[in-house]
Amino acid sequence: MATIPRDFNVAPGTSVSALEVPEVVIDRLPQYVRTLTQLLEEGIEVTNSQQLGAQLQVTPAQIRKDLSYFGRFGKQGRGYRVRHLLTELKQILGLDAEWNVAVIGVGRLGNAILNYPGFNPDGFHLVAAFDNNPDNVGKEVGGIAIQPMNALADTVTSRDITIAIVAVPSAHTQSVVDQLVACGVRAILNYTPINAQVPPGVRVRSIDPVLALQSMTYYLADQGHTANGHQGAD
Amino acid sequence: MATIPRDFNVAPGTSVSALEVPEVVIDRLPQYVRTLTQLLEEGIEVTNSQQLGAQLQVTPAQIRKDLSYFGRFGKQGRGYRVRHLLTELKQILGLDAEWNVAVIGVGRLGNAILNYPGFNPDGFHLVAAFDNNPDNVGKEVGGIAIQPMNALADTVTSRDITIAIVAVPSAHTQSVVDQLVACGVRAILNYTPINAQVPPGVRVRSIDPVLALQSMTYYLADQGHTANGHQGAD
Repeated sequence: MATIPRDFNVAPGTSVSALEVPEVVIDRLPQYVRTLTQLLEEGIEVTNSQQLGAQLQVTPAQIRKDLSYFGRFGKQGRGYRVRHLLTELKQILGLDAEWNVAVIGVGRLGNAILNYPGFNPDGFHLVAAFDNNPDNVGKEVGGIAIQPMNALADTVTSRDITIAIVAVPSAHTQSVVDQLVACGVRAILNYTPINAQVPPGVRVRSIDPVLALQSMTYYLADQGHTANGHQGAD
Repeated sequence: MATIPRDFNVAPGTSVSALEVPEVVIDRLPQYVRTLTQLLEEGIEVTNSQQLGAQLQVTPAQIRKDLSYFGRFGKQGRGYRVRHLLTELKQILGLDAEWNVAVIGVGRLGNAILNYPGFNPDGFHLVAAFDNNPDNVGKEVGGIAIQPMNALADTVTSRDITIAIVAVPSAHTQSVVDQLVACGVRAILNYTPINAQVPPGVRVRSIDPVLALQSMTYYLADQGHTANGHQGAD
């Protein structure tokens, strides 16, 4: 294992792909981008780890540690230049690019996804939709004509699609993910409650409201739930 | 700051609310529950940190560390008893209870949420829905009659609602969250891209597909995106 010198530092703008940035740090960076964007909209040009920490609900020390993976953005006692930090983080995350995205499964959820206005401003363009129900094929949702699943490979290639959103019934998750991987899709946003298996080099993120709810009930456990009737004040 | 003896251990079933369990650990526990449930369905009665780690995509050491917060579930070299661990984790997370949930905002997304069959089997019962559009009030979605927002306080009390799902337009997020908090709701699942501010004791989790996509593009950055035209193999 290589040893990293104690005073090792990455100059701003240096490619850091060779460094092992923990996935949990990468997962937080989009929230930095969102927060910095909001600060800039409010006319705030300089920020610090206290302010960012308060917004992101992590400690200032964590903020400094996260950003240290990517070089020296701030100067001791002077804070971070919002615009500069935002530009750099967007570049690091690949958000200075545009991404073509396919949606697989156009039930109620797929329908809501295709009509969601939040993807486009952030550079994610929903350019194709697929469904295995012949009744849905050919219909237009959110301005996109639904294609049959057997058109997937051709469209992924012709439209330069690298990202897919999966909103199919659970039983079809793995088979759809396998097809996407075979077509060359490298990032999958999975709306089903199934842990899809993918080969190395393919990323999966899950959107799972039940898991999110379950991580909150821990904190409610003594505040009253309906089963045992000890509801709090009314 | 209190010192914890080095051999400190919590007996299974002991309340651990006084211990500071990191939020990131709590966030992972629902995934443990899901994985253990799947193992049990497959007839697997004993597991270990290697197997759990592979399923959850964390290291076996992390699994052991996470579970150590809640006492000694496994015996060195013998693994974990799946059924026992599952029961204990469900109890810790408050999943042995039933929870009544309200949905705020019944647009396309709220509609998909109200029709999603995945909440009920896990003890989350969508029992009320609210919308500020008079055209929607009174309509039935997923078997639930939509109520006006001014009925919120009464219904939250009468139906023992402690959890709410927010699926309103972004501009209304904070105002709706404030109303929910005022009514006594203690856990909020926020489907909008706005960081809602809440007082201590209220939990918020966000479902945000754009943040999830942005955390994947980092890994795609050299594999081709449409803006600069260097797409990979076709």
